[in-house]
Amino acid sequence: MPTEPAPPPSARTRVRRQADRGRYDRETIVAILDEALVCHVGFAVDGRPWVVPTAFARIDDHVYLHGATGNVALRALAAGAEVCLTVTLLDGLVLARSAFHHSMNYRSVMVFGRAQPVTDTEEKRVALLALVDHVVAGRSQATRLPTAQELRATLVVKLPIDEASAKVRTGGPVDEPGDYQLPHWAGVIPLDLVRGAPRPDVADGPPTS
Amino acid sequence: MPTEPAPPPSARTRVRRQADRGRYDRETIVAILDEALVCHVGFAVDGRPWVVPTAFARIDDHVYLHGATGNVALRALAAGAEVCLTVTLLDGLVLARSAFHHSMNYRSVMVFGRAQPVTDTEEKRVALLALVDHVVAGRSQATRLPTAQELRATLVVKLPIDEASAKVRTGGPVDEPGDYQLPHWAGVIPLDLVRGAPRPDVADGPPTS
Repeated sequence: MPTEPAPPPSARTRVRRQADRGRYDRETIVAILDEALVCHVGFAVDGRPWVVPTAFARIDDHVYLHGATGNVALRALAAGAEVCLTVTLLDGLVLARSAFHHSMNYRSVMVFGRAQPVTDTEEKRVALLALVDHVVAGRSQATRLPTAQELRATLVVKLPIDEASAKVRTGGPVDEPGDYQLPHWAGVIPLDLVRGAPRPDVADGPPTS
Repeated sequence: MPTEPAPPPSARTRVRRQADRGRYDRETIVAILDEALVCHVGFAVDGRPWVVPTAFARIDDHVYLHGATGNVALRALAAGAEVCLTVTLLDGLVLARSAFHHSMNYRSVMVFGRAQPVTDTEEKRVALLALVDHVVAGRSQATRLPTAQELRATLVVKLPIDEASAKVRTGGPVDEPGDYQLPHWAGVIPLDLVRGAPRPDVADGPPTS
């Protein structure tokens, strides 16, 4: 994605609550998308909302989602449903001297728009490898690649990152002026999604249960 | 919440994709809700979806959300919008021998329904303290409690945990029978949301920027 001036926010992407936390530059939006492992995809079916957690990958200025061809959520997206795709990274628990000012440090992104199915086989293949590489960099080069049948069994859709915004909170608690002398501990408990030691699969065949 | 037989899933809560991952018992649903620090709340405004990450707390058989009285999302919920509230805990990256069978271990919950505003001041106070205690157990007893003005400035809504389901994946990769002899590393990289060493706030007054 080329670096370019941040476009003005739309009526939907303009951050209203705590507007100073709004970020509209592509660099910030892309960095959050690339760090997050899952997104929450929201869409309405017959006016009723659904929020589905799913893996994703970004390539240039699109977010790619995938699933089985029978996946109800993906089929709704492929059919052109409006989407709000949200990712959230938690960075810390913010403990203030007052209950009222407790907060969290986080980085989130919302992308609004409509997805479209990816029908080109090569684009689909590239997207599926990007989904694997999004989780572990370079991983697609250390796996068996998708067969033609696996590609056919997979529905891939892409959502343009056109109408998007980020919201970011950093730093310590902000208490009422009169509360700073209170004896209560205040500060930040950092949060980090940590990857543990890899546990090799020792099976020599699929589970039989 | 009393332990009771799992109610039959509704048309919305019945897990369709990988149905063997569906869990409908209250114990599982409540445990996931209680461990998660944020939820993603989905609702439609004029038929267009929104997915907003936010803190929450469970008390008995309700999920409580809060925000400023001007918060657009909360106001939509308080006005009776249909809601899909989703929480997702990531437990591991599942690396298979084939790109196709890569997956994640996770525990998620979806709650469908309509929220209602909490108007009783005492229930509101209890909910706000539960929100603080949800993040750090017992924390509400080590803070300045909400004033009447702070209570008035806060909108609290509650969503019943009536129509809810969980989805859980555990274990290692499941590859095609013919792929187990491939030389590619396969296994699970555990994920854990870790709390770091607390960083005390040393300010003696609010930021002046």
